Amino acid sequence: MKTGICYIVGAGENYGLDIRPKAGDFVIGVDAGYRLLEEKKIDIDLAIGDFDTLRYIPSHPNVIVLKPEKDDTDMLAAVREGIHAGYERFFIYCGTGGRTEHTIANLQLLADMAEKGKEGFLFDRHSVITAITNTTLKFPGGLSGYVSVFSHTDRSEGVYLEGLKYKLTNAVLRNSYPLGISNEFIGEESSVSVRNGTLLIIFPRGIPLPERWTENNKVDSGYGHEQAADMVQAADVEAIVALLDGCTQAEDSRIQVNVVEGDGKTVSRQYHHGRCDIGSPWACGTAFDVLE
Amino acid sequence: MKTGICYIVGAGENYGLDIRPKAGDFVIGVDAGYRLLEEKKIDIDLAIGDFDTLRYIPSHPNVIVLKPEKDDTDMLAAVREGIHAGYERFFIYCGTGGRTEHTIANLQLLADMAEKGKEGFLFDRHSVITAITNTTLKFPGGLSGYVSVFSHTDRSEGVYLEGLKYKLTNAVLRNSYPLGISNEFIGEESSVSVRNGTLLIIFPRGIPLPERWTENNKVDSGYGHEQAADMVQAADVEAIVALLDGCTQAEDSRIQVNVVEGDGKTVSRQYHHGRCDIGSPWACGTAFDVLE
Repeated sequence: MKTGICYIVGAGENYGLDIRPKAGDFVIGVDAGYRLLEEKKIDIDLAIGDFDTLRYIPSHPNVIVLKPEKDDTDMLAAVREGIHAGYERFFIYCGTGGRTEHTIANLQLLADMAEKGKEGFLFDRHSVITAITNTTLKFPGGLSGYVSVFSHTDRSEGVYLEGLKYKLTNAVLRNSYPLGISNEFIGEESSVSVRNGTLLIIFPRGIPLPERWTENNKVDSGYGHEQAADMVQAADVEAIVALLDGCTQAEDSRIQVNVVEGDGKTVSRQYHHGRCDIGSPWACGTAFDVLE
Repeated sequence: MKTGICYIVGAGENYGLDIRPKAGDFVIGVDAGYRLLEEKKIDIDLAIGDFDTLRYIPSHPNVIVLKPEKDDTDMLAAVREGIHAGYERFFIYCGTGGRTEHTIANLQLLADMAEKGKEGFLFDRHSVITAITNTTLKFPGGLSGYVSVFSHTDRSEGVYLEGLKYKLTNAVLRNSYPLGISNEFIGEESSVSVRNGTLLIIFPRGIPLPERWTENNKVDSGYGHEQAADMVQAADVEAIVALLDGCTQAEDSRIQVNVVEGDGKTVSRQYHHGRCDIGSPWACGTAFDVLE
């Protein structure tokens, strides 16, 4: 088993490719994803696809050319190669935002990976999508923003949502009723568990990635804290944008953002309920709760 | 049972709202979808939502204000109202393209509607998404473009794909393997059937909508041909764009589009395999197969 990350870059919409692979990671360019990696000057370990979007076969020492008429999607073939190379953890970029059928196919792929004990993260525009089967996902404290939980399987039994705005205890979710949409982080350590079934979980892009736990043990995917810290650095801008979006949605009229420097792992917000409208204490210079 | 169409306009991305409701139809503006309908000067029968996106409660004689903290999504609440008003057939606009969790919730909603015997069509950017449970969907002849078929349920048994590029006979599809992605219309009358399960089907926006059939009988949803012809007229531009996109993907270097006027129901293509490259018969003026 390889302890690194298998990065897979597809031909969908590019919502930011802020990756910095390290020694031991594996980077796959899928069809036109190859060109995106080239443009970012990221070393590529494998090019794969039918290349109908790229429209040429890349000159790379490691190329797998698939027939256009095939049962597997290019993305699925890439994941197969990553698994074959020994990887357990997959970060998929540019796998959403194009034709909706490809997004659906990639959601099904995430579910398949979860059912096979692999970890897949699909990096969408403002969010990250992952799937878990019969296991637990733990988020650190200090987070804000939306988190949505869907049953991918017909039923998901023994669902627990803890440390979130809306709790669930030993609940049943079905894939024809989106009860778990638009839950929210409230700053506590939080977790999403399912005893029997596969869940799709969507959370803001830019926050630290959650850890998988099984029966009180963290799943050893070789994913270390150092890498997590790197990711947060690279994704700080995304996190701040998500944070500001959240404030806008909550109709906060004035916010104060404290960005933690150094070893800080999260970007949190502090705010108060004053307003800067004409005639307000702030505008009149009589605000008493914000002056230091 | 009402024989008209229940139009539901959400707060997602507006990929074109070319609807022309008739007497007997029902138009629901969901949250900020209300404003889109107002801007298009389309009569609104009901406004519903928590209005957190619109940010004001519309002054309309028929408004339902939902609490932001609720189990149902605004869109699901709108469908419930449409069903309550007696409608069987739902055209949902602006229900994709925003936060991906809303798209997933709406796919689950389509599946729920199909399982309850209702017909839902979700109008996406270039495509339309629908769901069927234990029934058949029939497309007319003369179509081109992609059509994708996914199992929404864990398994879909007794799946038949007929008249498409890739056929299936009494097959099993699973929701963890997207075997049915990127099938293609080939001009024949075609159908998608499932004996036991729920399928999601995605086809190009702008083509005539398929009909549901059960045991050799067309399901009477009151959806007449006149309405279908209207839709094709309104969506002609979309159809041509989809057609040209298809040609680009197929790497056709020169195409000839024949748009059928008057009572024509479909937009089809005719082409030949010549090329205009330098030195080609066309470029040299010696083409013999295209001159009239």
